[in-house]
Amino acid sequence: MKAEYINPFITSLGTVFRTMLHCEVKRGQIGLKANCQPNYPISGVIGLSGNAVGTVVLSMSEQVAMKAASTLLLTEYAEITADVLDAVGELTNMVAGRAKSQLEELQLSVSLPNIITGQDHDVRFPSNVTPICVPFETPWGPLTLEVGLAPVAVPAGA
Amino acid sequence: MKAEYINPFITSLGTVFRTMLHCEVKRGQIGLKANCQPNYPISGVIGLSGNAVGTVVLSMSEQVAMKAASTLLLTEYAEITADVLDAVGELTNMVAGRAKSQLEELQLSVSLPNIITGQDHDVRFPSNVTPICVPFETPWGPLTLEVGLAPVAVPAGA
Repeated sequence: MKAEYINPFITSLGTVFRTMLHCEVKRGQIGLKANCQPNYPISGVIGLSGNAVGTVVLSMSEQVAMKAASTLLLTEYAEITADVLDAVGELTNMVAGRAKSQLEELQLSVSLPNIITGQDHDVRFPSNVTPICVPFETPWGPLTLEVGLAPVAVPAGA
Repeated sequence: MKAEYINPFITSLGTVFRTMLHCEVKRGQIGLKANCQPNYPISGVIGLSGNAVGTVVLSMSEQVAMKAASTLLLTEYAEITADVLDAVGELTNMVAGRAKSQLEELQLSVSLPNIITGQDHDVRFPSNVTPICVPFETPWGPLTLEVGLAPVAVPAGA
């Protein structure tokens, strides 16, 4: 994917965390997925389609998920509940939604967020797509943003 | 989601397995996710957007993934490699791609397939979406198809 496409997602993540969670995030070194951290145990995943196809993955520790959900939903969560996982999905949706409006030439639409759980899970992209991985530090712990975008292929079955 | 929306995905899965993998699948009891099997260790996930938003999840054992990849790529795989995972993503893409052409009124486009690995992983949908889960038996072992679709919401940030 073109490197400049990552910037709207980075900006969007900062804005969503600042405005929705009153939380300042600190960006680390941008890299390709192979050099980045593994996924944390909770990942929000949302698809993008339009003049490119892709995926946004927001991966975080249980601590970050609980703190983010507590702030977003004004309720204290001390364990991972359906509400906490919904909040992770909604944050992923907001990050993708804000970014797509800054990538007008790609005419992106977003799909439904899914939330992947499991200590050792990994969210992989097809081998021909190299996602860009951006680590962030929050006051609650680390999280990673991954974005992979590919040119539109001929639809399967067409 | 409307129950009739699941049928194109079921038909598509049968057609893809028959034509691409020379493999007859046997459908089990359609259910809601809560009553269905847990995810198998490898899941292909692809987003849908258009006049509805959603996700297709194709979840299978390592054995089914290796056998499917071996047939699709005409190479014998005895372990999980990047090629095997790519094949799972491509199968998921084909199932979603064929189904969307039968759901013209939804004007769906598909995103990029991702492949989730991890023995205990789970692919969750937002609480307000109840995915339909369809178990299948193949000669290589079981797999499940999950489809969740929701009406389009106002985009985040709009």
